[in-house]
Amino acid sequence: MNKYHFDEIDVGRKEGFDIVISQEMMDSFRKITGDCNPLHNDIQFAVSQGYQNSVSYGMLTASFLSTLAGVYLPGMYSLIHSVSVDFVKPVIVGDELHVEGEVIEKDERFNTILLKVKITNGSNAKVVRGKMRIGVSK
Amino acid sequence: MNKYHFDEIDVGRKEGFDIVISQEMMDSFRKITGDCNPLHNDIQFAVSQGYQNSVSYGMLTASFLSTLAGVYLPGMYSLIHSVSVDFVKPVIVGDELHVEGEVIEKDERFNTILLKVKITNGSNAKVVRGKMRIGVSK
Repeated sequence: MNKYHFDEIDVGRKEGFDIVISQEMMDSFRKITGDCNPLHNDIQFAVSQGYQNSVSYGMLTASFLSTLAGVYLPGMYSLIHSVSVDFVKPVIVGDELHVEGEVIEKDERFNTILLKVKITNGSNAKVVRGKMRIGVSK
Repeated sequence: MNKYHFDEIDVGRKEGFDIVISQEMMDSFRKITGDCNPLHNDIQFAVSQGYQNSVSYGMLTASFLSTLAGVYLPGMYSLIHSVSVDFVKPVIVGDELHVEGEVIEKDERFNTILLKVKITNGSNAKVVRGKMRIGVSK
């Protein structure tokens, strides 16, 4: 786990990691949230809607932004203040994703950093783009 | 599960539900994401930072917006296009939350609705506010 303090972070710093959206993650996410929508739980329904397999919950994909902030950038001394994400392409169960953030702003008044975030799939297509404001201890 | 089609939804429609952020949810979220940040996993660390108990992952709290869209409003025929959320107050493990959305815009060109969302705690204090754009089948 990274442990960057506010003063150790410069604009332009990047961190990223890879994950695979598994059926087990989907099952756990459904148990947590109770979101039993068939697009995410019924392959036949998903296929009838034009997908090759169940579609990942968008908010499951977005959950890895928690890991990006809490483990990678800035890591230990972070608290997420706000998140905005566009789901620009569907994520299919089994997809390998790369989650990445880059510091594009530092606010010295409030000790916050602004990350530009993107998540890309195995074909290097962007599936999520967004921004995240994070408080970081001095 | 609600099954509203685009044409059945009017601006002003509201839906909501209650949940409790449990330790089990926290454990499952950590297993999914690998976010082992101590603010969410180490009560002593959380207390040292001024909290009464572990702090809920913001993205876990936000995960219930998946349920709001996929089960309640509009329900079955939905696909989330974008989400933006501000975490305006920390959520502590054990907190009872009310998750609510209200349709504030319909876009007839793209069959999308815009929800204003808020999540409040047991003291009726807002912990999350945001917006969510959702595609809905005709």
